[in-house]
Amino acid sequence: MKRLFSICLALMVAPILFAQTIQSPDGALELQFSLGDSIPQYQLRFKGKELIRPSRLGLELFDAPSLTGGFFAKNQQTNSFQESWNPVMGEVKTILNHYNELAITLRQPSTQREILVRFRLFNDGLGFRYEFPQQPNLNYFVIREEATQFALNGDHKAWWIAGDYDTEEYKYTTSNLSEVPALFDKSYEGNASQTIVPMALQTPLMLKRPDGVYLNIHEAALVGYSAMNVELDPKSFQLKAHLTPDAQGRKGYIQTPFHTPWRTIVVAEKAEQVLASKLILNLNEPSKIANTDWIKPVKYIGVWWQMFCPGQGSWSYTDIDNVRLGVTDYKKLTPNKTHGANNTNVKKYIDFAAKHGFDGVLVEGWNEGWEDWFGKSKEDVFDFVTPYPDFDVKMLTDYARSKGVRLIMHHETSGAATNYERWMDTAFRFMVNHGYNAVKTGYVGNIIPRGEHHYSQWMINHYNRVIQKAAQYGIMVNSHESVHPTGLHRTWPNAIAAEAARGTEYESFGGNNPDHTTILPFTRLMGGPMDYTPGIFQTRLDYYQPGDSRYVTSTLVKQLALYVTMYSPLQMAADMIENYERFPDAFQFIKDVAVDWDDTKILSAEPGDYITIARKAKGKEEWFVGGITDENPRVTTIDFSFLDADDYYVATIYEDGKNAHYITNPQQYNIYKVLVNKKSKLKQQLAASGGVAISLKKADKEELKKLKKLK
Amino acid sequence: MKRLFSICLALMVAPILFAQTIQSPDGALELQFSLGDSIPQYQLRFKGKELIRPSRLGLELFDAPSLTGGFFAKNQQTNSFQESWNPVMGEVKTILNHYNELAITLRQPSTQREILVRFRLFNDGLGFRYEFPQQPNLNYFVIREEATQFALNGDHKAWWIAGDYDTEEYKYTTSNLSEVPALFDKSYEGNASQTIVPMALQTPLMLKRPDGVYLNIHEAALVGYSAMNVELDPKSFQLKAHLTPDAQGRKGYIQTPFHTPWRTIVVAEKAEQVLASKLILNLNEPSKIANTDWIKPVKYIGVWWQMFCPGQGSWSYTDIDNVRLGVTDYKKLTPNKTHGANNTNVKKYIDFAAKHGFDGVLVEGWNEGWEDWFGKSKEDVFDFVTPYPDFDVKMLTDYARSKGVRLIMHHETSGAATNYERWMDTAFRFMVNHGYNAVKTGYVGNIIPRGEHHYSQWMINHYNRVIQKAAQYGIMVNSHESVHPTGLHRTWPNAIAAEAARGTEYESFGGNNPDHTTILPFTRLMGGPMDYTPGIFQTRLDYYQPGDSRYVTSTLVKQLALYVTMYSPLQMAADMIENYERFPDAFQFIKDVAVDWDDTKILSAEPGDYITIARKAKGKEEWFVGGITDENPRVTTIDFSFLDADDYYVATIYEDGKNAHYITNPQQYNIYKVLVNKKSKLKQQLAASGGVAISLKKADKEELKKLKKLK
Repeated sequence: MKRLFSICLALMVAPILFAQTIQSPDGALELQFSLGDSIPQYQLRFKGKELIRPSRLGLELFDAPSLTGGFFAKNQQTNSFQESWNPVMGEVKTILNHYNELAITLRQPSTQREILVRFRLFNDGLGFRYEFPQQPNLNYFVIREEATQFALNGDHKAWWIAGDYDTEEYKYTTSNLSEVPALFDKSYEGNASQTIVPMALQTPLMLKRPDGVYLNIHEAALVGYSAMNVELDPKSFQLKAHLTPDAQGRKGYIQTPFHTPWRTIVVAEKAEQVLASKLILNLNEPSKIANTDWIKPVKYIGVWWQMFCPGQGSWSYTDIDNVRLGVTDYKKLTPNKTHGANNTNVKKYIDFAAKHGFDGVLVEGWNEGWEDWFGKSKEDVFDFVTPYPDFDVKMLTDYARSKGVRLIMHHETSGAATNYERWMDTAFRFMVNHGYNAVKTGYVGNIIPRGEHHYSQWMINHYNRVIQKAAQYGIMVNSHESVHPTGLHRTWPNAIAAEAARGTEYESFGGNNPDHTTILPFTRLMGGPMDYTPGIFQTRLDYYQPGDSRYVTSTLVKQLALYVTMYSPLQMAADMIENYERFPDAFQFIKDVAVDWDDTKILSAEPGDYITIARKAKGKEEWFVGGITDENPRVTTIDFSFLDADDYYVATIYEDGKNAHYITNPQQYNIYKVLVNKKSKLKQQLAASGGVAISLKKADKEELKKLKKLK
Repeated sequence: MKRLFSICLALMVAPILFAQTIQSPDGALELQFSLGDSIPQYQLRFKGKELIRPSRLGLELFDAPSLTGGFFAKNQQTNSFQESWNPVMGEVKTILNHYNELAITLRQPSTQREILVRFRLFNDGLGFRYEFPQQPNLNYFVIREEATQFALNGDHKAWWIAGDYDTEEYKYTTSNLSEVPALFDKSYEGNASQTIVPMALQTPLMLKRPDGVYLNIHEAALVGYSAMNVELDPKSFQLKAHLTPDAQGRKGYIQTPFHTPWRTIVVAEKAEQVLASKLILNLNEPSKIANTDWIKPVKYIGVWWQMFCPGQGSWSYTDIDNVRLGVTDYKKLTPNKTHGANNTNVKKYIDFAAKHGFDGVLVEGWNEGWEDWFGKSKEDVFDFVTPYPDFDVKMLTDYARSKGVRLIMHHETSGAATNYERWMDTAFRFMVNHGYNAVKTGYVGNIIPRGEHHYSQWMINHYNRVIQKAAQYGIMVNSHESVHPTGLHRTWPNAIAAEAARGTEYESFGGNNPDHTTILPFTRLMGGPMDYTPGIFQTRLDYYQPGDSRYVTSTLVKQLALYVTMYSPLQMAADMIENYERFPDAFQFIKDVAVDWDDTKILSAEPGDYITIARKAKGKEEWFVGGITDENPRVTTIDFSFLDADDYYVATIYEDGKNAHYITNPQQYNIYKVLVNKKSKLKQQLAASGGVAISLKKADKEELKKLKKLK
């Protein structure tokens, strides 16, 4: 450990009894741990600048002395680590995990207890966590609050959503931290389940310092612990961990040995580097699934978006308002004739998926119980195994199999996790018996056990139980309305995607901001892939119902670009298939685009403004480029230097039309082909909330002759 | 319905808009329902005396107008019903279910909602419940509180325990209702889980009016609803329903159609009639188990009491204090050498059971996890399928089978119902695979889901789920630390017994009062059989540890009598087998006594003082008599007129010795045989907290010659 230096300096007002410093492998970041007045603190510097002022560490407990002070450093260990690993699916083929580590054992003599704080300092940021060895005086404890601070040293610009125990489905607000108090109450709308935490912000929290350095605060490897919001002191710009309580206001029931999730701070001089960071993944454990052959990327369509479009479909089979599973006899009820998950419609989707090369067809509303699934605090809403009369599960799964397509299961729990846990084995066996290998889970509404939250420890354990049990059955999980991801897809790669943010569905009920998808990769996606469900071609809903004022805040081309800018190995072509049939040339991009990658280049990015990304398809010499902008039209220059030397590629360019505009003219686009090589640069105009999507394949001789070269 | 009269009288101060009266089949009880100021009320008279003054009916809701007033009577129906039915197991072979019924449909015009109040008036009391038909304006609602009152008309004597959401394991206090405030805080001790409800009392609540009439207030058929305590107004002597809240203070999540449990008031001029009442059973639904052949009475011994006696044994296998199931490797740990559930000890119990004709051997502490099972709010305490290394489940169950004995399973949940629900199928399959057909469940400690209570709706549903799932596997359930029984063993006869009161175990930690078992049949046992675990012969614990001041507050003979006075088709001989071997003559009664009956005669009883009961064994010409007294020595006269005409019976009489005393001389007893017939009367002396136990078999010729006749 040549780069590590142990120093004892009186840097702060409080007398420093102990201090220890490590640097990142490249020497740019410096982490100092210190004990002033026996209180553990850390601070972080980047190229000599203070990023995180001295910030407290520790935990407050119920019915036991706090673990926040009275410590001495009993032991410290430093370590350097470097490995490369290959994710089962991902943005790149190989990930470098390289850090210097400092582990301090803190002893509290008054209680004869010891805890350990472990820091890992990467070139792209810091992770640290608390560890609690098993010991006579610390076998079980209950957390009142985590004392961890992130003391920022100025009024940073932030892309934020309000702290909440139950939902992340908010629009982002962009403001300086000092402006948060004035904007806080305006920042959120209603949700099926929400518990706002006053003056707290959710993580991943994207920050930009006045000097242009970016910070991104989150957590990694959230296991056995409640999720974190951060409380903001808008005067001192100090953030403080705020854990999610249970029904009794307790924030965690811990049995030693235990360690908390990592608290993470990604640091970058360029926004592009934030998107390229693999720090959170690196802080997660390697895969616990030995054979991952069955975990595969999924491009899918679904009986879904029609339920959000006026008059196009419903989840429910009837118009009754009171269902009792096992008692309500649907065969005797009058169908409402709008039920989307009917045999005819599903077969149509299977046919379309087969014809256009999709892996799967999601079908929502296939099972009994949708008539009163929502907002009733009902526990036994679904049994996850009983189809509606017009959904012939055997016929349809057989039919799908005959076409080389798989149906994707939908397990909406209505938040009743207790009910889901009772049914889970039966439900997963049902899936296996019918050839399903992927499930979309949902947690709409308040949680049962009542009083628990979507982010509380019991629910974190639940989500992890679902993932692990699904793995036993060979099932991939895409969970919606669950907690913010924290890189656990490294450990459980069958957790292929999640929602945990405001997705495309909101375009139909509250609308998303045009800059929404330029922020999400810097926030929600820092923790893992999102099932954002892009691909809406018919963005204006007045198409279905004259006078309907709702619209997707995006041009059609931007919808294409999202397949590249929003990384996920599970990607939906979310629109109704009839709309794809109206725009077959644009649809070609969705058919072509990869969802799993060997390489990724963040070409340009600024949160809230624009993102341009190039990705190389897994195992192929094909690249795809996606570029998006916020509400402002923009010219972006795409530098093709990521391409292989000397080769020309056919670039199929999907661009906004000259007069395209996300509100007034979203469906105007041009598609053309041109030859590019690594020296090419494309100056590309993007419409207001528009985009550009490019597919690149090596040109064959004929194409080299036929096509023009990009100037 | 000749006995029903519809009357409209202005009986109260409030103008009576509507009144309707029914009488019990024998005409002694009269129930009047009325609407004064549109508020529903009922009152109850017995032979012209007012037992229950006008008392309000209804429910208060969350986020919806209350269902307590603003009603008119839209419809009323009367009905008379009479049937006889045979319980699968019970105190009598045939039960008469005979009542007159009044059902009033109440309409609340302001909300266009309707509820129904159904009254059933039996000769031995009243039952009533609320019914909520499915209707457009009442599909789902959340209960704030039930408004039901029981307005007593005087300062009755009460045998009571403090209201609580989590435990009934208290000593009874005997006082007038007016004295409750002064005694309330002294009435309860600590418990592993308790939530006292100020100035509330638990049901079954036994009351005695100044005129000698007994009232017993409870509930029947507690399904899908939280359990009831009753709040006392010690000045007006009004009791009011107080339901158990969940973690959020809500008392019930209801989906229509629904009906509440029955609120029950047993009425009797004699205490004996209270014990003979089958009103609560009659208000439960008939058995939902079609084939009940597998449900059988169980007399059992167990590896159990030794854990309560100093130095005699432990549940846990080691002395560690931190277990992780699946991680902790017991094979590598040092055994504590006190573990009771070891192969040698269990085989000894199996041998003893086989030798003495017991059906089963309960083994507690057989499975991994006991080291830290208690008070840690730990969720994954047990997996219910992993034995300790010294408990060879296959060998032992095979050995038991070879001896004609069955092991009884023990599922302690530590209150973690969520964990139990996850394991339940696996645990029951494990039982079936190993030949177990009965399980003792336990809920020691605070409930998980955290914030739920032992009596809250979610847990009521849980207990019922356990019973129903056990029935699917052919398993009988004896649940401990669960809710007060409410006669559901009629509907689910595999729910053979429960604890839900302060049982014998408390003799070793807090002690029971000498009058405890003279009260329990009037309180706890009104709802169903109790696994009281009598039969402690070595009552003084200084036998095990000199100087230990604890003792079972009973003579040895009283312990015998409890097998008759405390009805249960599941009865334990709770003492260690070594103690039975010391007193083989007294032990003979436990071997002989039946646990399922064709007939029962309550010979004499007064709550808190004495009980004498005679029961006729199922399918046999054998009777057993048990008599007990409180701390006072007493002479009881046993009238054998219940015997068949003309036949002489050999009575084997187990009586307290002349100087017997529950503290100073508990093990002094006499056993003698004498001939009795239906004209015989036995004047029997009972020691302080003593008893008498008698077995009666028809005398053969030799016995008629040899034995003396009782004078």
